[in-house]
Amino acid sequence: MKMSKLYAPTLKEDPTEAELASHRLLLRAGMIRRGAAGLYSYLPLAWRTISKIEAIIREEMEAIDAQEMLTPILTDAELWHQSGRWDAYGPELMRVSDRHDHEFALGPTHEETYTDLVRNELRSYKQLPVTLYHIQDKFRDELRPRFGLMRGREFIMKDAYSFSATQESLQECYDQEKDAYASIMERSGLKALQVVADSGQIGGDTSVEFMALADAGEADLVYCDDCGFAADTEAAVVGIHVEEGPGSELEKIETPCDGTIEAVSKLLDLPECACRKSVALVAEDGTLVLAIVPGDHEINDVKAEHLFGHYDLMSDDELEKCGLVKGFMGPVGANGLKVVADVSLKDSQSWLVGANEVGFHFKGAKPGRDFQVDEWADLASAKEGDACPKCGAKLKGARGIECGQVFQLGTKYSEAMGATFADEDGKEKPLIMGCYGIGVSRMVSAIVEQHHDEHGIIWPVSVAPYEVEVVPLDVNDDLVWPVAVKIASDLVAAGIEVVVDDRKERPGVKFNDADLYGFPYQIVCGKKAVKNGNVEVKDRATGERQELSIDEVVAMVVKQVESQRA
Amino acid sequence: MKMSKLYAPTLKEDPTEAELASHRLLLRAGMIRRGAAGLYSYLPLAWRTISKIEAIIREEMEAIDAQEMLTPILTDAELWHQSGRWDAYGPELMRVSDRHDHEFALGPTHEETYTDLVRNELRSYKQLPVTLYHIQDKFRDELRPRFGLMRGREFIMKDAYSFSATQESLQECYDQEKDAYASIMERSGLKALQVVADSGQIGGDTSVEFMALADAGEADLVYCDDCGFAADTEAAVVGIHVEEGPGSELEKIETPCDGTIEAVSKLLDLPECACRKSVALVAEDGTLVLAIVPGDHEINDVKAEHLFGHYDLMSDDELEKCGLVKGFMGPVGANGLKVVADVSLKDSQSWLVGANEVGFHFKGAKPGRDFQVDEWADLASAKEGDACPKCGAKLKGARGIECGQVFQLGTKYSEAMGATFADEDGKEKPLIMGCYGIGVSRMVSAIVEQHHDEHGIIWPVSVAPYEVEVVPLDVNDDLVWPVAVKIASDLVAAGIEVVVDDRKERPGVKFNDADLYGFPYQIVCGKKAVKNGNVEVKDRATGERQELSIDEVVAMVVKQVESQRA
Repeated sequence: MKMSKLYAPTLKEDPTEAELASHRLLLRAGMIRRGAAGLYSYLPLAWRTISKIEAIIREEMEAIDAQEMLTPILTDAELWHQSGRWDAYGPELMRVSDRHDHEFALGPTHEETYTDLVRNELRSYKQLPVTLYHIQDKFRDELRPRFGLMRGREFIMKDAYSFSATQESLQECYDQEKDAYASIMERSGLKALQVVADSGQIGGDTSVEFMALADAGEADLVYCDDCGFAADTEAAVVGIHVEEGPGSELEKIETPCDGTIEAVSKLLDLPECACRKSVALVAEDGTLVLAIVPGDHEINDVKAEHLFGHYDLMSDDELEKCGLVKGFMGPVGANGLKVVADVSLKDSQSWLVGANEVGFHFKGAKPGRDFQVDEWADLASAKEGDACPKCGAKLKGARGIECGQVFQLGTKYSEAMGATFADEDGKEKPLIMGCYGIGVSRMVSAIVEQHHDEHGIIWPVSVAPYEVEVVPLDVNDDLVWPVAVKIASDLVAAGIEVVVDDRKERPGVKFNDADLYGFPYQIVCGKKAVKNGNVEVKDRATGERQELSIDEVVAMVVKQVESQRA
Repeated sequence: MKMSKLYAPTLKEDPTEAELASHRLLLRAGMIRRGAAGLYSYLPLAWRTISKIEAIIREEMEAIDAQEMLTPILTDAELWHQSGRWDAYGPELMRVSDRHDHEFALGPTHEETYTDLVRNELRSYKQLPVTLYHIQDKFRDELRPRFGLMRGREFIMKDAYSFSATQESLQECYDQEKDAYASIMERSGLKALQVVADSGQIGGDTSVEFMALADAGEADLVYCDDCGFAADTEAAVVGIHVEEGPGSELEKIETPCDGTIEAVSKLLDLPECACRKSVALVAEDGTLVLAIVPGDHEINDVKAEHLFGHYDLMSDDELEKCGLVKGFMGPVGANGLKVVADVSLKDSQSWLVGANEVGFHFKGAKPGRDFQVDEWADLASAKEGDACPKCGAKLKGARGIECGQVFQLGTKYSEAMGATFADEDGKEKPLIMGCYGIGVSRMVSAIVEQHHDEHGIIWPVSVAPYEVEVVPLDVNDDLVWPVAVKIASDLVAAGIEVVVDDRKERPGVKFNDADLYGFPYQIVCGKKAVKNGNVEVKDRATGERQELSIDEVVAMVVKQVESQRA
């Protein structure tokens, strides 16, 4: 491909609307363009990357006998009524009426469609299991679409649905998809964690999210390098290290500061985990709550909602009524409160807590003696340094981009929609389902988040739009140009995907664009080197440059590229 | 692939809603399922065929440097307002509002989107020409969706848009796409005509439709086997053979019959083309018209609308006012009428026409002497037997399914939307555009219409879901089953796409399903033949059966298949 022909218009300046590196670089490298909020066109380079990701997905799906097909985007409202999701889904579900005022949803996911498809045709246990999937544009009317391909309103998703006769068979389909997803992430160049999103009653996971590690990720994670455990900070029940406060008898001490844990621990020369953090809440049912966690941890919003429903922080009036004083709150002597403390504190006998008096704390406060704890609960956010609940090693913290999820649905949809099969015993039973999704366009963002530097994108070979860029520095030079053309055509003949920068631009412009586009290898043909029978190969990932003879460069680059393909 | 695993549920009975062979067979062979009116799921077999058609399209597009990409399905209403099509498109355009009441159309075609995409980025003649395309679900809210994939409300389309600096460059892009489309049709197994839909001012065509020949087609066509000319009957200006009526002087004769051309010509022993057919109309502007065509032709509705606007047939009052008598109408002696006659009659001097009196005609009526012709116009529908306007050979008649269209748009959209470029002379000029569409899912219907018999589909190898079906007649037989498995795995190793019918069904069921699915080759493994070291190969297209030794069957079938791939 000649660069002069390639439709990939670059931008010199950073687009102001782009906060994330991936958003910025995909725009600047002419890979995506915004049509409206959350709606992007994939230009030819991005489309090539997406096609490669899709090809990897198809290979992995074929290997586990999942069958590709395609259902309509317009899904009948009637199906959503049957599942109960027409009302439950809310404004994210985009709805459209046809000329006869019949309602449809633009599919955000297709559980209803697939359940409807098979409900009259998968009739016997002999036909099971079956896994069907498609790759398709999906629609979610996000309140705040943002970050380019990361959170769009129309996006490319691969979604699969499995139908089984038994829980064991579902488990098998689920495990196969899970393994395939791990392989898809890895082959696409993504370092991703398998985060347990939900644990089943019989042990083992029933839902796992594939989180690509990236600072730009929206999810807060902890993970263990030793045993592979990973979890959302909001989901993890981890081991929190707690230290005892000073003294064993209740004693009021002066703490002349602003009352933050940081200030108090500094003042008393204690680690933060020897302090106790109290937060005053009003639960959804009106209960007044004092929630207490170790001083170096935060109350996790999702865990708190789980315990208290939609809660609010206490108003000044409520604080006063309970005898609580901002900045110096504590359970000792407070009235009419339910005290809920994090389970990590259960064995601790000496708490340093606020004395409900400005400038004073209690040390040596003992639960059961000096105050009551009404409930021990999992309340604190997990964080880096906590102990892995599986192996006890220290957890690392990270942020992640959700690129995929596998989920054991069970009979939720098949029961609601009457999708049954005749089992071996002749009885009608609901199909046991699993669903499995990958955000294909979001993966492009995640890949760029993981693979870029200040100059541009650094494509992994497996998903690079092109594998090699040949850069003749002077296209009018009788020596340089034929060499560039020959190298490019030899590479193409060897099955390598090549762009030749045939533009009459200055070397600086070409180098900058080459780094911005980020194809894995650049072969620079300069006059001086060519005169000596050489060209320069730059490895975009490492930045290493190597002068190679014109005769050997093709074989060397072919070898490099082939060894890194998916 | 094992048939027991394949999700392709067959139907024994013909579905009542299916009128066309393709609709019926695609449903029966478990290739498509209806979600709602005009909305179909493509099941795995259909998806494999679609993927092959798409692969052919991509190859042909790559060969002419058209670049694949993907734009959103949701297209901003603002763009449609700019082009003027938001109001013009009517109820076929599906419209949806987001949570902020911002309006979008579900793209039925993407001229606006692509014009918007390039209007700020194709800025110089140096960047031109560029052709961009995508393959995508499109939406048209048809009043009467029907015939399965033939006329759906959501369908797969490939649409390309070219941007040029000059008319010559547009012509080149257009010709390249046109040639590529011809190749795509042919490689997909479709016999298609290139029908000139519109002729340009400078001669040559500016729009061509690719019509797959099929009795089920909605378009009425004439074509010439000698020179390749083809046209809609409504568009063609063809040579119509006309004979003179009897006598040269005006004479009223008795014609005791119902007055139809058939009855009159029989009564007088004349060919129908020696008679003249008169139809009385009221034009949109109120003009009373007597339209006259050769007796063996019909007035073409589209041509008549072109001449008269939205016209009506005359009421009895109007007929009486003009002195016209139903069944025996003619121009002689009629009052207050504009007489418009088909150009084919211009040289005829003796017309047999109605005498405006029940049971009587005039013979020997001469235009200019016995009545006036106010206008000679192209008014008659072309039909089989007319002369080719290009070479004079006799035309054949056919019906066609529109599978593709290429179109020179010119500057319609670029002017309306302000998409200009700086030309070599430094002046800003509107981009000169072409657009090129293929109905991918409709092609599947067209292929089945052209390739089926009473037993099922007969897939061309190039687009067959699978190329070979291996049919072991008894899967429990220790002799038969291993032979079938060996043949199948040898074929797969040779790169052939194979289904093995591993079901415990009777031979009759297997044979019927094999013919219904219609994979090009069936390898039947029966006990008797296998005992003799043979299997039977059936060519689905010809029905020919051949007993081949187990040792040679794989090589023979591989050779056959490979020679017929796209």
